[in-house]
Amino acid sequence: MSRKVTIALDAMGGDRGSDAVVPAALATLERDDSVSLILVGLPEVLEQARRDAKDRYGSRLGFKPATEVVTMDELPADALRRKKDSSLRGAIELVKEGVADACVSSGNTGALMATARYVLKMLPGIDRPAIISAVPGRERPTYMLDLGANVGCTPQQLLQFALMGSVVASDMLDVARPRVGLLNIGVEDIKGNEVVREAGELLSKSGLNYIGFVEGDGIFHSDVDVVVSDGFVGNVALKTMEGVAKLIAAFLKEEFQRNALRGIQGLIAKSALEALKERLDARRYNGASLVGLNGIVIKSHGSADQFAFENAVKTAIVEARKGILVQIGQLIESQPH
Amino acid sequence: MSRKVTIALDAMGGDRGSDAVVPAALATLERDDSVSLILVGLPEVLEQARRDAKDRYGSRLGFKPATEVVTMDELPADALRRKKDSSLRGAIELVKEGVADACVSSGNTGALMATARYVLKMLPGIDRPAIISAVPGRERPTYMLDLGANVGCTPQQLLQFALMGSVVASDMLDVARPRVGLLNIGVEDIKGNEVVREAGELLSKSGLNYIGFVEGDGIFHSDVDVVVSDGFVGNVALKTMEGVAKLIAAFLKEEFQRNALRGIQGLIAKSALEALKERLDARRYNGASLVGLNGIVIKSHGSADQFAFENAVKTAIVEARKGILVQIGQLIESQPH
Repeated sequence: MSRKVTIALDAMGGDRGSDAVVPAALATLERDDSVSLILVGLPEVLEQARRDAKDRYGSRLGFKPATEVVTMDELPADALRRKKDSSLRGAIELVKEGVADACVSSGNTGALMATARYVLKMLPGIDRPAIISAVPGRERPTYMLDLGANVGCTPQQLLQFALMGSVVASDMLDVARPRVGLLNIGVEDIKGNEVVREAGELLSKSGLNYIGFVEGDGIFHSDVDVVVSDGFVGNVALKTMEGVAKLIAAFLKEEFQRNALRGIQGLIAKSALEALKERLDARRYNGASLVGLNGIVIKSHGSADQFAFENAVKTAIVEARKGILVQIGQLIESQPH
Repeated sequence: MSRKVTIALDAMGGDRGSDAVVPAALATLERDDSVSLILVGLPEVLEQARRDAKDRYGSRLGFKPATEVVTMDELPADALRRKKDSSLRGAIELVKEGVADACVSSGNTGALMATARYVLKMLPGIDRPAIISAVPGRERPTYMLDLGANVGCTPQQLLQFALMGSVVASDMLDVARPRVGLLNIGVEDIKGNEVVREAGELLSKSGLNYIGFVEGDGIFHSDVDVVVSDGFVGNVALKTMEGVAKLIAAFLKEEFQRNALRGIQGLIAKSALEALKERLDARRYNGASLVGLNGIVIKSHGSADQFAFENAVKTAIVEARKGILVQIGQLIESQPH
């Protein structure tokens, strides 16, 4: 039997709020009976969720009321200072109190990061939190960090990201020693800037399965499991990916709509095109971890629907079951001082 | 009639050397009778090219022998110091001497950059050369720089890149005031690092058609014509694009080969899939300019075939005809001091 875990869900976050979160929660409870969930939200939302659940899950479904909701465009500092009883903060507090093993929110990224840092603090030996997520690869996903939490990093911080990324990839991909690469503009030792070169030296002494520098096109080759960069470069790479995928999808659509014959050809090719779409579906990769905090916090995309939110909850469940915080702590401890 | 221009071609550069360069040269001469070309290469290669040309182009096809060839893996400093009579350098020297209006090489990027800087020097007011190339966009290509010549940049250097990129995009896209964006990790003024924010301030005072920050996915939207970044970020973005395009192509291929039925569907959809492939064909975008030098130098991809090399030569022809160096000089002059 799987280890029992409890996950706190911000029921109000994201563009769809409880319309995505509550169905995802009920589907999760239905699928995995060693998971308990606590919904955090406005009382009327919780009341509706209670009715939807029809007493099916007993104590496995908990409720924690909140009186406030952080909006998507609120400044992080404002959310932190003024909305102390928000659903976003309530979910994080449950992790802090040890009631939940992890929390998930589709809410405002900046507010989630600021509140989580304030409430949970950092893990010992980690300077800054980083955002890590899976992206598609040839044979299996690749984990990338940092995706935008830090605009500039020291070599030591890149090493910390590598250690945390290695733990996340190991747990999520179920591999013992994930291959870790540093994102650079060439694979030779002399390439890149000083920070990346120094980070490369630190990584070769880290005990990680460090494979060296990786270029932008190497992210997808599936000969690397974790790609480390500062948050500026990582964020640009992630959004460039999204942009290219959308561009190609738009080109494909245009080509299959060019004339009536092409339209028919498109209908005939539909199953393959749908399969492609599914393989690249960003919802499958939903659920970025804010690693480095003393608590598991999963950021779901603001536009997440039920399917996407369920995937974010799955990430939280795996990280909680595998005990990612203890694993990161041990890896940090094992480093040469 | 178009303005007459002379372009020097390194006949030995790239993986295919003269097998790509000579046919591309002859096709160019055939297509555009106001272009003259000078092939620079080993005597036996020039002799063969002379035979291939069959006296068809008279003085429009010139030859300059070289005794050395820079290899693709040669260190730039070694190429510069030891191979003073290389075909790569010979082509650049023709630009320096005013015999050619521009040169094109598929050779070693580092060696080309180092030799061009040494021979041609920088344009007044420009600190560092940058690499600019077109990438695909929704309605028309977007020009990106720097793609890897500079790993770290000052705000002033990013401004210089923007000025040069604006000239290149204006000439290549034939638009009067190209829209210029700065690559960043968010579109709000407070996003990114200090260098990008300061560069944003300089750009808003530059007189350019500056539209603000652009995120990675914004590169392809065709609401921006020039995207400016330092060479580290630009190179990662460019290679990430290539990687995603290859990943999607591989996924598509897999889906259409999954079983016999899918194979037939793929055959039926072939014309649309071929059209997509053509639209994304990197060879169409071949020909990166090394801007900032006091001379026009076009870097063709090392793997360029005849079609790709012809496109690089076309870029050289446009830049030479439009007088890109004078245009850049005027724009630099017009800046507030």
